[in-house]
Amino acid sequence: MSTFFPMNNGDAVYSYSRNSQIQREILDGAKEMMKEAIIKNLDIKSILPSSNKFHITDLGCSIGPNTFTSIQHVVQVVKDKYHDNNLEFQVFFNDHVTNDFNTLFRSLPVDRSYYASGVPGSFHGRLFPSRSIHFAHCSCAIHWLSKIPKELLDTNSPAWNKGLIHYAGASNVEIVNAYAAQFEKDMEMFFNARAEEIVPRGMMVLISPFSGWDSLNFLGSSLMDLVNEGMLDESLVDSFNVPIYLPSPDDITKVVEKNGCFSIENIELTYPQSKLVDEVDANTFIINLRAVLEGLFINHFGSKIAEEAFTRTILKNKEISAWMKANYKACQLFLALKRK
Amino acid sequence: MSTFFPMNNGDAVYSYSRNSQIQREILDGAKEMMKEAIIKNLDIKSILPSSNKFHITDLGCSIGPNTFTSIQHVVQVVKDKYHDNNLEFQVFFNDHVTNDFNTLFRSLPVDRSYYASGVPGSFHGRLFPSRSIHFAHCSCAIHWLSKIPKELLDTNSPAWNKGLIHYAGASNVEIVNAYAAQFEKDMEMFFNARAEEIVPRGMMVLISPFSGWDSLNFLGSSLMDLVNEGMLDESLVDSFNVPIYLPSPDDITKVVEKNGCFSIENIELTYPQSKLVDEVDANTFIINLRAVLEGLFINHFGSKIAEEAFTRTILKNKEISAWMKANYKACQLFLALKRK
Repeated sequence: MSTFFPMNNGDAVYSYSRNSQIQREILDGAKEMMKEAIIKNLDIKSILPSSNKFHITDLGCSIGPNTFTSIQHVVQVVKDKYHDNNLEFQVFFNDHVTNDFNTLFRSLPVDRSYYASGVPGSFHGRLFPSRSIHFAHCSCAIHWLSKIPKELLDTNSPAWNKGLIHYAGASNVEIVNAYAAQFEKDMEMFFNARAEEIVPRGMMVLISPFSGWDSLNFLGSSLMDLVNEGMLDESLVDSFNVPIYLPSPDDITKVVEKNGCFSIENIELTYPQSKLVDEVDANTFIINLRAVLEGLFINHFGSKIAEEAFTRTILKNKEISAWMKANYKACQLFLALKRK
Repeated sequence: MSTFFPMNNGDAVYSYSRNSQIQREILDGAKEMMKEAIIKNLDIKSILPSSNKFHITDLGCSIGPNTFTSIQHVVQVVKDKYHDNNLEFQVFFNDHVTNDFNTLFRSLPVDRSYYASGVPGSFHGRLFPSRSIHFAHCSCAIHWLSKIPKELLDTNSPAWNKGLIHYAGASNVEIVNAYAAQFEKDMEMFFNARAEEIVPRGMMVLISPFSGWDSLNFLGSSLMDLVNEGMLDESLVDSFNVPIYLPSPDDITKVVEKNGCFSIENIELTYPQSKLVDEVDANTFIINLRAVLEGLFINHFGSKIAEEAFTRTILKNKEISAWMKANYKACQLFLALKRK
């Protein structure tokens, strides 16, 4: 089962490009940490002994504008550190082949100080020649699994995820274990590929959400409402699982150590100091979720049921507000790595 | 006036991807010459003294499938010449930002033996870091002007192109001179950019059509028919000029010599040995023209008049057949260059 559904394309009302504020605030929160990591760990003279070309990639970049902000930040920090006017930056924007690269390219900043290119393909596999990347950035992307582990769909398996659409809220530990095992497999492929592509002493920064996805329960319960009203067959809910796993520092450390090619320079959970994120209202939260998940829902349930599920979830905004006040604190996992 | 209108997108009946047979045959005709040029001129040990990464670009690649055929050919010839399993190929597919990169990426050959990326932007300006390209390929693209010289639209200029849509058929030499001057300016920018981007002793192969565009007269006369029937204002025809100039070997030689950074290894006019091209019927010829020009026509005249103009031109297929038999012989300009 392929799960390559891009963020909502274009720039319409529920598009990702107009509904990625939370992701942006998460990135803003990571800016200082990224700057520190670069200042402390990047040694451009050792990774570019006889060249002036610095190659950056943003893995899972989606369609902007967040990717442009992140990349500009990396470029600026490197420029400020080295004050070398001869340095030239080439940026490789990567995402699945189904990503809307046309929108991405048409919204590239006109005043950018780098050469831009797009690289289609899954970051779970090889994307670049060996030893050709000096800095890899990946934000809000590694938590997407390459596929749903089949046990979740197997009525005979202890990991069968009946009546739910995610491990959040599942009482059976086999379910979260199946998600975790898939994440580990995916990340093994991710690190194997990056180990080939990143130059010795090159860097990689990973940023991943660590909270908020429990809210999938509300979407799940909207779907179950539709089942109870006879509008939707329950087997369609049972056979649907959102392919997102929020890794813990331990999950990542385990894969990095197994891979053996990277040293962890920094790993921490951080809480963005952002009024927008702290005080995000339930409506914005759900619309944001919709921009990210709608393609996935439409593919499985069709557009009518998907529309109905999101509309009904917005009607639960009081309940969701209460849940957010009691349980939700925006949190992200930040990780700075160096290729040995 | 911007003239960046891409080939017809997608894969519908008049799309470029389904109507680029003539361009393909032209490329097939150039295959042997490209092979010879690479075998004779490419010295990979001198351009990659301490690296195994060979960077290729296809400038003005459009949306495939021709670009994939050309690139695969270049890769194969280089592989056959060097038998070096460590060689890695990275290909940069370039075209205007309005090109349909989504279609291009989704039709990339699955079994390709190179890393693929897309680079949006005009090849009349810089696209890549300095000294980062080893082989540049550009087919059926340099004949597109970056803009229409404004004298053609100036009713007070001797180059005013009244009643025609191209220099083909114009009795006034000022008109073709204005086209030629614009081509020269564009190519100066093209060669200045490539001189920076291509490594010393790197190669560039240019292939450009040298015949067939006189047929624009038939489209022009269809438009004038619409004027005579009162369906179209004549000033709209007078203000429209197809931004295509077919360069002669002398045109190119002049710009290359002025630039001074490239040596011409081969320049010749060739006649593809192809039944398809020799025996192409008038209908195929016009549909092919439509796939290339429709966007430009719709932008200026609107879709109704554009549709009418192409439909009426197809009705002239007997006249066009007769013209083709008497005057048309597929011919292309082939040019192999080496960066000094």
